[in-house]
Amino acid sequence: MAHPEERLAELGLTVPEVAKPVAAYVPAVRSGIHVMTSGQLPMRGGELMATGKVGGAVSPEDAVACAQQCALNALAAVKAEIGDLALVKRVVKVVAFVSSTPDFTGQPQVANGASELLGRVFGEAGVHARSAVGVPVLPLDAPVEVEIVVEV
Amino acid sequence: MAHPEERLAELGLTVPEVAKPVAAYVPAVRSGIHVMTSGQLPMRGGELMATGKVGGAVSPEDAVACAQQCALNALAAVKAEIGDLALVKRVVKVVAFVSSTPDFTGQPQVANGASELLGRVFGEAGVHARSAVGVPVLPLDAPVEVEIVVEV
Amino acid sequence: MAHPEERLAELGLTVPEVAKPVAAYVPAVRSGIHVMTSGQLPMRGGELMATGKVGGAVSPEDAVACAQQCALNALAAVKAEIGDLALVKRVVKVVAFVSSTPDFTGQPQVANGASELLGRVFGEAGVHARSAVGVPVLPLDAPVEVEIVVEV
Repeated sequence: MAHPEERLAELGLTVPEVAKPVAAYVPAVRSGIHVMTSGQLPMRGGELMATGKVGGAVSPEDAVACAQQCALNALAAVKAEIGDLALVKRVVKVVAFVSSTPDFTGQPQVANGASELLGRVFGEAGVHARSAVGVPVLPLDAPVEVEIVVEV
Repeated sequence: MAHPEERLAELGLTVPEVAKPVAAYVPAVRSGIHVMTSGQLPMRGGELMATGKVGGAVSPEDAVACAQQCALNALAAVKAEIGDLALVKRVVKVVAFVSSTPDFTGQPQVANGASELLGRVFGEAGVHARSAVGVPVLPLDAPVEVEIVVEV
Repeated sequence: MAHPEERLAELGLTVPEVAKPVAAYVPAVRSGIHVMTSGQLPMRGGELMATGKVGGAVSPEDAVACAQQCALNALAAVKAEIGDLALVKRVVKVVAFVSSTPDFTGQPQVANGASELLGRVFGEAGVHARSAVGVPVLPLDAPVEVEIVVEV
């Protein structure tokens, strides 16, 4: 099977620089057989790709792209912790928080932006359990926040 | 001790069909000694038992019944992953997301619908850590979403 | 290195009484190498330190103090489960749910109240992965709820 970063390259993507540690928390922690990431925002090149709520200022399509970027940033956090994404045996869990207007109920479709990227990068090993929920607001007014747990 | 499915039968309940895998995620994943489920909605017979927000269109009583159904669906997801609920050594963690009007603060009572079912089914082994929080909206406008982690 | 409770004492803090088990859930569960706490509210002396939403009735500064209290209560829950906080090898994960007005985006600063306490108490071992999200409402109208996972 191709290396996860080769899969990303086929999608025209690369592992971004990991966001610098802030205060008393870090992008990811390894504990036992798991690496758990912090909640990742759709930062790209140091800026949020979009701000606002899905169903309002942010379209569902843009939110899908944001969720993919969150997953990409989560992979960067995992790579920074373990050195090589090929060491990932399984993506175990994804939680997607979607900043939503009270009538927007398409959180699963938004979260698919993250889930499908992980499936493309890791194949069968990328298939995970997932929760997707609406929230009223996220840090920096981001539209999506995604955290992942992987087995190494 | 009685088999968990016998306990369910005493409550007039059975393990439902597990919701089919959707896209790049699955109802549950086993990793190490844990099985983590996806967020479960109160689907029964292929339909949501209720839609809307607790404190609004959905009464607290109906929300408790929804939370119980979410837990039942989570057990179905666990059973589909490990084959037999008697292999569950401990329910470790429950997270209940309750779609809430901004002034509804009874999320713990709603979440008890899930927690008490797990306690009845597994006895001491069903006693878990839990978080219950309000959210503004959930997938498909469901009133409750519950995810669980069990040790096997 | 100083005992975690000595560190707390230097900050003028002590481990509080753990909240009594309610219904079918408990303050913390040990499973394998991890202890996972229930979501902790900013209870102090049996009462919430504040009620309402951050960005509204609750100031960001008061919310930071609430988040610290949640973390302190989480440490009480861990201690009650394992007997001695010196057995904590690593704080792995923190999730902070911040009851927020729709325009309040400072959840990370609020969550720092929990993260920084854990850093001061455990030093390097207190540095964790973290998610911070807004929610519309929390149990009992609490402004903050925090759950933690530690490795023992």
